[in-house]
Amino acid sequence: MNLYFAPHTCALATHIALEEAGATYSLTRLNFAANDQRKPEYLAVNPKGRVPALATARGVLTETPAMLAYVAQSFPAARLAPLDDPFAFARVQAFNSYLCSTVHVAHAHRMRGYRWVDAGDAAAIAAMQRKVPQSVREAFDLVERDLAPGGWVMGGTYTICDPYLFTLAQWLEADGVDPAALPKIADHRARMAERPAVKRAIAAELAPA
Amino acid sequence: MNLYFAPHTCALATHIALEEAGATYSLTRLNFAANDQRKPEYLAVNPKGRVPALATARGVLTETPAMLAYVAQSFPAARLAPLDDPFAFARVQAFNSYLCSTVHVAHAHRMRGYRWVDAGDAAAIAAMQRKVPQSVREAFDLVERDLAPGGWVMGGTYTICDPYLFTLAQWLEADGVDPAALPKIADHRARMAERPAVKRAIAAELAPA
Repeated sequence: MNLYFAPHTCALATHIALEEAGATYSLTRLNFAANDQRKPEYLAVNPKGRVPALATARGVLTETPAMLAYVAQSFPAARLAPLDDPFAFARVQAFNSYLCSTVHVAHAHRMRGYRWVDAGDAAAIAAMQRKVPQSVREAFDLVERDLAPGGWVMGGTYTICDPYLFTLAQWLEADGVDPAALPKIADHRARMAERPAVKRAIAAELAPA
Repeated sequence: MNLYFAPHTCALATHIALEEAGATYSLTRLNFAANDQRKPEYLAVNPKGRVPALATARGVLTETPAMLAYVAQSFPAARLAPLDDPFAFARVQAFNSYLCSTVHVAHAHRMRGYRWVDAGDAAAIAAMQRKVPQSVREAFDLVERDLAPGGWVMGGTYTICDPYLFTLAQWLEADGVDPAALPKIADHRARMAERPAVKRAIAAELAPA
């Protein structure tokens, strides 16, 4: 497998999951500053022009919730999801889908507003950016509400929800949200940062090219 | 099981899947005009204040991609997803995640722009609405590109991707996209509309209260 990623993106979630699973994989780093993600060679891998993408022997996968579940299912010994319990698995998937479609989308209005208004409309772009601290905070408030103190997203068991929450929570300060207002998420982030798999993934992403 | 829904929302996807699965379930219709989704009795079911939500004996599920996979896993005889093949299942999930986080989000900027800018900022709300025909069209273009003519989303086999695509494709005209520009999706929509499960779900959603 090969993971296409760029530093400081949601690709980190899948990267951590691969490390937690003990997977054998390689990495391809894209340079967003050089617009690598829009170049023909990458569009041939992922026509969406975004990261992450996971190349496997059978083809390319995209979309973080799908990739995370794929890692969990491909490495069942790592016990990264409740694979034999459809309801428990659906709770994992609902959490990750919410991160993808609500939390990440709220965040994306700070840097990627041109997806939803004309790039030249500076007033509308700025209007989106002003809303981000509120919309991101409200999206995380729902997560904070349900998070078990000192636990993992699904309670006592570490799952593929945890690296994804950790990844998006890395962006709180830049989005204008004080992590101190989300104490359980802040504590989760601190505990995640101590995990060897997380340290390895971050070190690999930030290593000199 | 009980499905909380409102007509003309993405709840239709799960509703169709329940019909295709032959599930026994009840329906609770929310009236968005009366703001039912923000009332305390519904927030006790789904604190997100949105539809759909699926109440099960073990608790409430939300997020369409998670609910669709749950229906497929709970009714394996209906063969609504490739449950024993992690890669094929991940492709299903990637498709549904894309509909949720990209296609539906592009659409939502027409009617729900207040999620991402202040509701009183009429110029920014209008700027979002102007972009919808382009952003929705571009999101569907990627689906159109990969859709097999005359087939289902995953090729020859009907899956939980099909009711979800059908549901979101219902909104093309209102979003300012001509379905004739997406001929394979338009054909898919027409074939879906003929399925008995689809007819039953739509009739139930539009029946007098």
